[in-house]
Amino acid sequence: MEKKYNYIMLTLAPMSFGYLCHFGSHFCMNQTPLMFQDVHVMIFIGFGFLMTFLKRYGFSSVGLNLLLASFALQWGLIMQGLWHLDDGKIKVSVFKMINADFSTATVLISFGAVLGKTSPVQLLIMTILEITIFGINEHLVAEILEANDVGASMIIHAFGAYFGLAVARMLYRPALRNDHENDGSVYHSDLFAMIGTVFLWMFWPSFNSAIAAPGTDQLMAVTNTYFSLAACVLSAYAVSSLVEHKGKLDMVHIQNATLAGGVAVGTCADMNIGPFGAMIIGFVAGIVSTLGFKFLTPILASNLGIQDTCGVHNLHGMPGILGGIAGIVAVALGKKNGSAAMQGAALASSLGFALVGGTITGLIMKLPFWGQPPDQNCFDDSIYWEVPEEEEEGEETLAHRVQKAEV
Amino acid sequence: MEKKYNYIMLTLAPMSFGYLCHFGSHFCMNQTPLMFQDVHVMIFIGFGFLMTFLKRYGFSSVGLNLLLASFALQWGLIMQGLWHLDDGKIKVSVFKMINADFSTATVLISFGAVLGKTSPVQLLIMTILEITIFGINEHLVAEILEANDVGASMIIHAFGAYFGLAVARMLYRPALRNDHENDGSVYHSDLFAMIGTVFLWMFWPSFNSAIAAPGTDQLMAVTNTYFSLAACVLSAYAVSSLVEHKGKLDMVHIQNATLAGGVAVGTCADMNIGPFGAMIIGFVAGIVSTLGFKFLTPILASNLGIQDTCGVHNLHGMPGILGGIAGIVAVALGKKNGSAAMQGAALASSLGFALVGGTITGLIMKLPFWGQPPDQNCFDDSIYWEVPEEEEEGEETLAHRVQKAEV
Amino acid sequence: MEKKYNYIMLTLAPMSFGYLCHFGSHFCMNQTPLMFQDVHVMIFIGFGFLMTFLKRYGFSSVGLNLLLASFALQWGLIMQGLWHLDDGKIKVSVFKMINADFSTATVLISFGAVLGKTSPVQLLIMTILEITIFGINEHLVAEILEANDVGASMIIHAFGAYFGLAVARMLYRPALRNDHENDGSVYHSDLFAMIGTVFLWMFWPSFNSAIAAPGTDQLMAVTNTYFSLAACVLSAYAVSSLVEHKGKLDMVHIQNATLAGGVAVGTCADMNIGPFGAMIIGFVAGIVSTLGFKFLTPILASNLGIQDTCGVHNLHGMPGILGGIAGIVAVALGKKNGSAAMQGAALASSLGFALVGGTITGLIMKLPFWGQPPDQNCFDDSIYWEVPEEEEEGEETLAHRVQKAEV
Repeated sequence: MEKKYNYIMLTLAPMSFGYLCHFGSHFCMNQTPLMFQDVHVMIFIGFGFLMTFLKRYGFSSVGLNLLLASFALQWGLIMQGLWHLDDGKIKVSVFKMINADFSTATVLISFGAVLGKTSPVQLLIMTILEITIFGINEHLVAEILEANDVGASMIIHAFGAYFGLAVARMLYRPALRNDHENDGSVYHSDLFAMIGTVFLWMFWPSFNSAIAAPGTDQLMAVTNTYFSLAACVLSAYAVSSLVEHKGKLDMVHIQNATLAGGVAVGTCADMNIGPFGAMIIGFVAGIVSTLGFKFLTPILASNLGIQDTCGVHNLHGMPGILGGIAGIVAVALGKKNGSAAMQGAALASSLGFALVGGTITGLIMKLPFWGQPPDQNCFDDSIYWEVPEEEEEGEETLAHRVQKAEV
Repeated sequence: MEKKYNYIMLTLAPMSFGYLCHFGSHFCMNQTPLMFQDVHVMIFIGFGFLMTFLKRYGFSSVGLNLLLASFALQWGLIMQGLWHLDDGKIKVSVFKMINADFSTATVLISFGAVLGKTSPVQLLIMTILEITIFGINEHLVAEILEANDVGASMIIHAFGAYFGLAVARMLYRPALRNDHENDGSVYHSDLFAMIGTVFLWMFWPSFNSAIAAPGTDQLMAVTNTYFSLAACVLSAYAVSSLVEHKGKLDMVHIQNATLAGGVAVGTCADMNIGPFGAMIIGFVAGIVSTLGFKFLTPILASNLGIQDTCGVHNLHGMPGILGGIAGIVAVALGKKNGSAAMQGAALASSLGFALVGGTITGLIMKLPFWGQPPDQNCFDDSIYWEVPEEEEEGEETLAHRVQKAEV
Repeated sequence: MEKKYNYIMLTLAPMSFGYLCHFGSHFCMNQTPLMFQDVHVMIFIGFGFLMTFLKRYGFSSVGLNLLLASFALQWGLIMQGLWHLDDGKIKVSVFKMINADFSTATVLISFGAVLGKTSPVQLLIMTILEITIFGINEHLVAEILEANDVGASMIIHAFGAYFGLAVARMLYRPALRNDHENDGSVYHSDLFAMIGTVFLWMFWPSFNSAIAAPGTDQLMAVTNTYFSLAACVLSAYAVSSLVEHKGKLDMVHIQNATLAGGVAVGTCADMNIGPFGAMIIGFVAGIVSTLGFKFLTPILASNLGIQDTCGVHNLHGMPGILGGIAGIVAVALGKKNGSAAMQGAALASSLGFALVGGTITGLIMKLPFWGQPPDQNCFDDSIYWEVPEEEEEGEETLAHRVQKAEV
């Protein structure tokens, strides 16, 4: 019964601040709603379906993604608005709505790290805390350090990943060290996940360019991301084949590592690094990410107690750091105004806030009254959802006949 | 054999008027083709996949959706054009194409009420009649009453829902009072349906703003819908958990009630109701819709003989009326030019035309030569489609072995 | 082991030219990035999921589609760029990126003809050769013959289809004359394919208008395609029902023939043929395509040794020729500047390059060191992918019990 009231209480949180939101007197179409729509597709279809790869956790993946994102974008709008209150009001604009979607992305990345091992209420608590901490770091990076991070390699991807990993560390479950029977995919669940992958892949150029300066900068962000992603696909496939048995491809790599180029080129997306520069960044990201899935994730799980369900460390964590470093180099080479030191400070700040914030958040999520699922119910929708009976008539009949034959 | 010739005859209907259509001499890009494309996605992917939740009716859901929508948009263009003939010709424009998509939406909503219980030819007959009646009501509401209904809560959602419910009443099947074995979902069919839900959810702001005045009004329609939908998700989840056994979530609610906020905010979408006003509308819509699915739909089926397969009464009917009422209140409060009385008349007109038109249409659809499926073939693709053999080799072998073991 | 190194070698091909690519000094948003994004969705989601209809080949369909398209768009950009080197550099623009996506489409069409019977490395070899030959023909048609082909009925659809058919003829496998057990669909794989169909259908107007002159021409291309597709759906359904047993519909027809109207209207898309002209083209295309699937494809396979897995001859080949002929007629009728003779020459050139180029490419692909799958592994992901165990616990238990019962 408590579960129910937790839901209701939490859903009232954004409402209780909503009355602060107003359309300003100059509310107008001065931003780029185009990119906004694409980013929205990434958040709701992209992240939602990317996580449906688990065989018995599709309802939660796409359903809780919708819940968390709807909650997070309201909360994100409020948290940002509180930094810039205008006559006691929060003014809404398309720019702020894009930023709200961005803050939502951090939560969905962290969700990937703990996928299957947390209750909806735990995740809503994580959302409230993570977006608040994101808001502080974002303010620091953008307005105090004045660092470049147009595609948010550092403040979204690295931040979201390491925040999620810190939470996962706090929620470590020794019983899941051996393979859980539901912690894997079936054929069709892998295809559902590819819907997510491909939508993320196609619209990533809009993500990296959504808040770029309109005109050449924005177009450059689109194009650089496009080249980085194209190169990344090639290296991800090559390395996947290289490290797998008999040169086969692994769906986990294809679903995830092909996107690492979008993450890694984020910080420099609007800099004139040229198509070849973007291709190199994407190519390296595809290699690093695929190798991470193959070799690093098992080590993190067994040696460090970090059970990273979706491998966000490989898709968002390392490529995000790579993006931050690429940004430092690009600024040092004069590709954009700024200071390499401030770029470095922004990366450090993002990692620091993520690790400390994630650790604290994880401790709070561990409190015993958020309905955390027991080990044997992990990766299983049926603990939180009414799940339809799978057995079809044919099979049932077969089972009956087996029963009879046994007698 | 008749079935075949009915198809062919009907497909020629739009062609026979098509020669009337012309590009006017001022055919140009003066409307908002952006929103048009998004509305198109809602019609074909959104509605199409939303209805794939039935375990054995996916081909019909997405396939007949494509057939009906393609037919309806041509028919809608012609029906609208006949009201405004220009020198004996129908002039085509992006604005009219958007309106054609809108008239299509009413048909697809009604389709949801009778899903699984009608033949394709019956549905094409329904399309012809419903769009014709829609055209009359739309003309009355927009041009005689001059009522506001930018997002069409009344003229599309309430109209389409009650039209479909009246048809469903006429086609009442007592034999389906007890659960039909195919009237339910399986795990993967629920995931396919979520593709529809999420695309509808993401692009609803475009639907509600597609024919709004460009500029601030249009942007306000986008933003109000965005807030209403976000709030609606939260209340739908909370209520779903509240009313279900053990606080679990029900996929039917998540697939449908999360969208009720888009319906309910339609009429006031371009009014300055503020983000908080939009959130309240969405929040209430999510509650009403979820409670409707849980408590009202079973009563309608058992007491009133209205078997509403997709629950369009909860997603489009009640939220549509809620939207109409919100519009009356908002106009009374001076949020937009207009008369509260005319808003009320528009709502009454939409409901009246829907119920009367749906009843007559249902009687015509009941005529015995449209190939209506018998009760035992309801909710089953295989009566209208070549369906692939499901049994896979493994199972087949197993069945053989069972057979042998039995012997 | 060789397989691995082939991958790696090939992925380096675009990189080795990438350093030639530069943003020009006038790099700006002068083209139509809107249409670009839609075309991108068609390439990656549309083609990718359209081919997932095979029961055991979904990973390859959507996964290799991503690989080939990412490879092809880089290679296409380079191949086009080499025709117009500017101071030794390839200048990148949105227009060229759209053209790169277009050249990619030819490869994906040809992929459909040989789906399930080729290795990834063979397909990458095909990509390199086909795009190079496409570039020559495109240069000839557009710049020497100066023919109209805005929606590329001839240079993409007819070219890609006959190129693929020529390759398929070269790779003829007598052992596949009798039905292969994996050469068919299951229920859910047909639904995945409909995701591809519907996205292609919705965004085809953007494909046909992406490189049209902005303004009236472009809008006309959108609208003509919209009408052609709507009419095509109706005739495809009618003919499918007409030719199938008991008037049922066949998913293969619905998935493919409903799109033929988009192909066939391509060449005349930006001409003032009027909505009715577009509807006639689409209506005829739907008939021709459906009849092709029903009657011609089996004949091609059994009599000519052309095993066309996806039926690209019916979706792209014949409708592409129909589009070319419609273009000749339209130009002869003065709907657009140009010469009917040059239109005819463009069609002949596209078919000639396709057949000769495809034959040579097929011979090269037949070389024994590209890892072509043996007959019994055709249409099966598991030879190139790590495929999850399908057997669920329930079944497994059942199998165990059968085993016991047998003993």
